Amino acid sequence: MNGHVPFGVADYFWDEASSRQSLLDHLMETFRGWGYGDVIPPMFEFDSTLSAQYDDRLRSGMYRFLDRDGSTLSLRPEFTTSVARLVGARLHDRPMPQRFCYGGSVFRYLEPQAGRQREFWQVGGELIGAPSPAADAEILALTATALKAAGLKGFRLIVGHIGYYRSLLEALALSPQQTEQLQWALERKSEPILDDFLRDTPLRTGQRQAVETLPQMVGGNVDGILSLAERHIQNRGMHAALQNLRRIVDALLGYDILDSLIIDLTEIRNLGYYTGISFEAIAPGLGTAVASGGRYDDLVGRFGPSQPAVGAALGVDRLLVAQRQDGAEGRRRQAALALPHGDPDALAQVQKLRQAGLHIQVDVNNRTVDSAIAYAAETDVRDVLVWEDGFQHHRRNGQGDFVPLGQLDESRLPGWTEARREEPSK
Amino acid sequence: MNGHVPFGVADYFWDEASSRQSLLDHLMETFRGWGYGDVIPPMFEFDSTLSAQYDDRLRSGMYRFLDRDGSTLSLRPEFTTSVARLVGARLHDRPMPQRFCYGGSVFRYLEPQAGRQREFWQVGGELIGAPSPAADAEILALTATALKAAGLKGFRLIVGHIGYYRSLLEALALSPQQTEQLQWALERKSEPILDDFLRDTPLRTGQRQAVETLPQMVGGNVDGILSLAERHIQNRGMHAALQNLRRIVDALLGYDILDSLIIDLTEIRNLGYYTGISFEAIAPGLGTAVASGGRYDDLVGRFGPSQPAVGAALGVDRLLVAQRQDGAEGRRRQAALALPHGDPDALAQVQKLRQAGLHIQVDVNNRTVDSAIAYAAETDVRDVLVWEDGFQHHRRNGQGDFVPLGQLDESRLPGWTEARREEPSK
Repeated sequence: MNGHVPFGVADYFWDEASSRQSLLDHLMETFRGWGYGDVIPPMFEFDSTLSAQYDDRLRSGMYRFLDRDGSTLSLRPEFTTSVARLVGARLHDRPMPQRFCYGGSVFRYLEPQAGRQREFWQVGGELIGAPSPAADAEILALTATALKAAGLKGFRLIVGHIGYYRSLLEALALSPQQTEQLQWALERKSEPILDDFLRDTPLRTGQRQAVETLPQMVGGNVDGILSLAERHIQNRGMHAALQNLRRIVDALLGYDILDSLIIDLTEIRNLGYYTGISFEAIAPGLGTAVASGGRYDDLVGRFGPSQPAVGAALGVDRLLVAQRQDGAEGRRRQAALALPHGDPDALAQVQKLRQAGLHIQVDVNNRTVDSAIAYAAETDVRDVLVWEDGFQHHRRNGQGDFVPLGQLDESRLPGWTEARREEPSK
Repeated sequence: MNGHVPFGVADYFWDEASSRQSLLDHLMETFRGWGYGDVIPPMFEFDSTLSAQYDDRLRSGMYRFLDRDGSTLSLRPEFTTSVARLVGARLHDRPMPQRFCYGGSVFRYLEPQAGRQREFWQVGGELIGAPSPAADAEILALTATALKAAGLKGFRLIVGHIGYYRSLLEALALSPQQTEQLQWALERKSEPILDDFLRDTPLRTGQRQAVETLPQMVGGNVDGILSLAERHIQNRGMHAALQNLRRIVDALLGYDILDSLIIDLTEIRNLGYYTGISFEAIAPGLGTAVASGGRYDDLVGRFGPSQPAVGAALGVDRLLVAQRQDGAEGRRRQAALALPHGDPDALAQVQKLRQAGLHIQVDVNNRTVDSAIAYAAETDVRDVLVWEDGFQHHRRNGQGDFVPLGQLDESRLPGWTEARREEPSK
């Protein structure tokens, strides 16, 4: 019998599962603290609902299968489209704005690569019904707050604006081939390819300068970059994009995240539905983004009345990698081991201790005390309770030996679990 | 654009999503309290891993699709087989017993029926590596404790033992047609069909009495039923099954669940892998089981070294239906609405309040105070904070009007969220 799992998925258990679940819970609680309400979309949707919204890369990376009635279904590769569908189709007449948060599995075929799973966990939020820069700023600040809550240090939020590039393209009035060459140069962040484009493409002086200076439109000097970009505006759309970006930056005052902000006006990759800012969070030592998001004012309108919207999603798997690099690995609370020796009174006592919040596993293998202590030592159990007209309490000491502490002292119980959390190394 | 979701799946949002998530968290915490450690298996497995373990009904109800490499995958229709695979293939050399708990979506094609989804949530636990009656008793008691934790009242645990029926069949040495007729009678709990079977089938007197009395082998008088069954034992297997059942019942002393116990020796339906007890929990007003489980000593061995095992799973969706019938609907904590009027100091203050545990949404639509209060009234927001060199606090009163409480009093904040939990109707 094959005991393997399919390529790109994995089992998580015990400490690893607890860390994963705790991080997801903690991130969700951060979103809830900002007034975001839980949403649980289905694990799969009609393929037609999802595919039409994505770029080729994401569309070709979906798990598809047939429903009994012949319709094509897809496992969700992200949450945003499902939330947009829900609001467009069912919640459009409820008061706006609406805030949603979600967490769970998403599925994408990806090329084999270290740390890249085909089932991975996202936590994210969507703010629907607010066109203002304050809404974009909230999503950026919330993303940063959530990353900090996950213990991530030294990350950068790289913010682009698809309106700047789209308007530049309009001004340049390029052929499809020329557009492709420019896009290629920006996606690869390749100055040689950009030089080729400039050599091959006849442009007016102002247009040429706008393209030539694109590689300088990236960096942490937000004000300097926006001022530089303003000197190369070719049309109203580029002006509007820069003005929007400046107002979003202004709205970030008070959130204490400006130090981690990087502007990148050459950032043009996105899922296919962004209409304003788009952003990624990157962290030292991690090759790929730990979070991404942006504004998508056209998506909800594909399912119902149009609504402006902005959102972000965090990659739980990548944040766990970052936590492990930090050595900040979580541990599950190890349950105490109780030996009731078949006495119903002992089981009743165990039930009381559990109700007081203690985690207790009961011996069901009829072990002797020695055997129970050997099992405890092998499994990191720290407390062993042996029934003798009341529980005798044995605790592992710093040397790994179990020492009798005498009768279980219930008055010390409330502090028990806390004390154990503070001593993870023992 | 189609705004629907596929048949049998649903969106849950806001209060409904919160209730669902809270119930799942609460049930998981119950299992953890008994020393069960989290396990997170993949959402899909090789079809060959799953299908071989199930009876025809479950096998025909799976969502299957092809991986890129041509292998057939299935969305998990339950968790137990995945956990058995994990232990058999990877954890067989770790100390036994091992305890696992899990929660999340499972997928089954089901006939359209009220309240039956094709994606639904299970929470459950597996206790692997313990053959003793104490292990079976622990799973039964844990199931009852979890159902109580979910607020379910008046439920019954109906416990059968597949060993009793299998051994009876051995003793009867029936033809396949006769076996099918008897099975049919028991599955339908039909005395007329049983009478037909008895009329059509030549049996020795003792055997005939063992079959005739089967309909009496059901009820809450555990001791009486076991004694009656013992008088009709035909072979060693039936004796062993009854002895096992009696020891499990004895091991339940101390757990305070004997009142909800019903023995049913005619219970022979199960997923296909049970080898000892199998059980269902039923609740008044719900047609279908809210939990089920049993002993499966042969399953782990199909993936690695053999291990005895027993487990249970609860249906979160059905428990939510039961909670709604009880009128015990959960509510999410409604976030307060803050109007910072574009002042960074106000945003900084909001961040502090969030860190203190308050849920606060910030106005991003540049509302006036009147408009904000109208929005709050429409959305059940109870507290509105308006920035005027500090937050002015407005609270909804019993008549639904918002009254000014003056400057936000931070000394009262710690009790704020608690107070709001106690007043769900306001």
